[in-house]
Amino acid sequence: MNIAESVLQGDRLALARLLTGLENDQPQGRDALDALFPHTGKAHIIGVTGPSGSGKSSLVNRLALHLAETGGEQPAPRVAVLAVDPSSPFSGGALLGDRVRMRDLMERPEIFIRSMASRGALGGLARAAGELVLALEAAGFDIILVETVGAGQSEVDIARLAHTTLVVEAPGLGDDIQAAKAGILEIADILVVNKADKNGAESAAHTLAAMLEIGAELKPASALLENTWKAPVCLTSALNREGIAALSETIAAHRAWLRESGVWEQRAQARLEDLFNRLLRERLLAEWQRSQPQANLTDALQALHKRESSPYNLIERLFS
Amino acid sequence: MNIAESVLQGDRLALARLLTGLENDQPQGRDALDALFPHTGKAHIIGVTGPSGSGKSSLVNRLALHLAETGGEQPAPRVAVLAVDPSSPFSGGALLGDRVRMRDLMERPEIFIRSMASRGALGGLARAAGELVLALEAAGFDIILVETVGAGQSEVDIARLAHTTLVVEAPGLGDDIQAAKAGILEIADILVVNKADKNGAESAAHTLAAMLEIGAELKPASALLENTWKAPVCLTSALNREGIAALSETIAAHRAWLRESGVWEQRAQARLEDLFNRLLRERLLAEWQRSQPQANLTDALQALHKRESSPYNLIERLFS
Repeated sequence: MNIAESVLQGDRLALARLLTGLENDQPQGRDALDALFPHTGKAHIIGVTGPSGSGKSSLVNRLALHLAETGGEQPAPRVAVLAVDPSSPFSGGALLGDRVRMRDLMERPEIFIRSMASRGALGGLARAAGELVLALEAAGFDIILVETVGAGQSEVDIARLAHTTLVVEAPGLGDDIQAAKAGILEIADILVVNKADKNGAESAAHTLAAMLEIGAELKPASALLENTWKAPVCLTSALNREGIAALSETIAAHRAWLRESGVWEQRAQARLEDLFNRLLRERLLAEWQRSQPQANLTDALQALHKRESSPYNLIERLFS
Repeated sequence: MNIAESVLQGDRLALARLLTGLENDQPQGRDALDALFPHTGKAHIIGVTGPSGSGKSSLVNRLALHLAETGGEQPAPRVAVLAVDPSSPFSGGALLGDRVRMRDLMERPEIFIRSMASRGALGGLARAAGELVLALEAAGFDIILVETVGAGQSEVDIARLAHTTLVVEAPGLGDDIQAAKAGILEIADILVVNKADKNGAESAAHTLAAMLEIGAELKPASALLENTWKAPVCLTSALNREGIAALSETIAAHRAWLRESGVWEQRAQARLEDLFNRLLRERLLAEWQRSQPQANLTDALQALHKRESSPYNLIERLFS
């Protein structure tokens, strides 16, 4: 039995190996994903992003447990968590992240958890994350939570390719300007103020709700016509396990809206096109490098280092 | 007089227009930068990154003022600040950021400040940031502070292309694991614990210093041979204006080390190559799209949406 068949039959070891293969860019990984592709497209993909210190990981942990237990569906939904850490082998972030959450989740057969470290390569993280999500879809998970750390551009790119994007904030992380600067409010389908047990949570929720109102007013009319969903603000305390059920219901409501409005399909297509475009860019570069005599490129970089030719001038010369 | 000549003569309005042109991808912007290119390569480029809530903006503000006043050089160094915000027009982050800091800095002739909003385009932010830095170099600034918000992959990419990278942390932003997860410790030439007026600053500094020790041990021997600089931890309070002079001296020490070790030139070359590679990728995609009948791509995306062809299969077909 090949790896794709094993994954389809629910073999977790095979799935883990496939994910590792995809992260390491092994050709077998892509071959397996090619075979698995017709089995993708059914899962509800939920992106969770927000600044560090907002308690995203704990919230994802609680949410995964809650969704797996009380999804309201028969049989209980199978939940996968993909934690995308822009961390390096040096910091060991991915490893620690796995361990901490695994204490809670590793004994649950209905929950699968996986951490990804940064690929380092340009655009590589987002592309690999897209591939891992496809593999998890094919493996039959009903809900895939994609957690991204920080509020950087790549992380936002990854999160917003979900069907439903949760942006997690917490009281006391900084002033309003810093929240606005993160530039991630407008990608939120649901805004979560976590650490609701702390002072200032209610006030943070009100401020954020007001900012969302202003944002909605600033959007062009065309955007409003397409998007009839108004992002609600949910208060949660992952620590005290409060607000998780309400958040879960809000997610279910968003899912129902996605299905009715046709936005579900739009977002699924956008996600596939994003992966396709990333693969296309990589292929174009590889083909070009193969076609190019190494000496040309070496000479070009020499001229660049000596500041004899500008980057623009070099590109023109290489393509003329 | 054309825009490049005006920029070289110190015309700030021309510089501001050039920066806007580059941000908006106007061909005139690139033409001007092509002409300005021989005048680049002299400034000390300092990247400042770290999680939201660490007080980076205030620190950059204080540091810019201090460097412009007491750089120890005659005449006083000219300082530019480029704040790279992954925020959108919706959140207004870039605008607010400008206004807040402009209150302090806008009346100083020796300081120039500029905010950049996210380009949205894949990789576009880092490429445009590289181009704006080149323009600021050509305009004769001696020190260019590049502040990136958050700890995301693109932002880390931008910051680590500086000669000197400052990673700013603050007490109380989260536990050790969250600091490690950010994955940015290893890019720090200087680690700054800001908000030293708050409880826990000393302890955060000790923890971070210990993490840096572990990281140094984990690095391959080859990296150690190349890199004899050991990242120090500086305590600052931008609020109380404490530690700024010491940080400034540490930056000067790093600059001296960069010059002696030859790493200055290595990093300058890496920055140029990064910009070249980003421009190359964009050009390859543009050339391919021009060469490709639109119907091919439309058909391919249709097959993808229906999940008839996997992305891998499509790429093979388009390139066969």
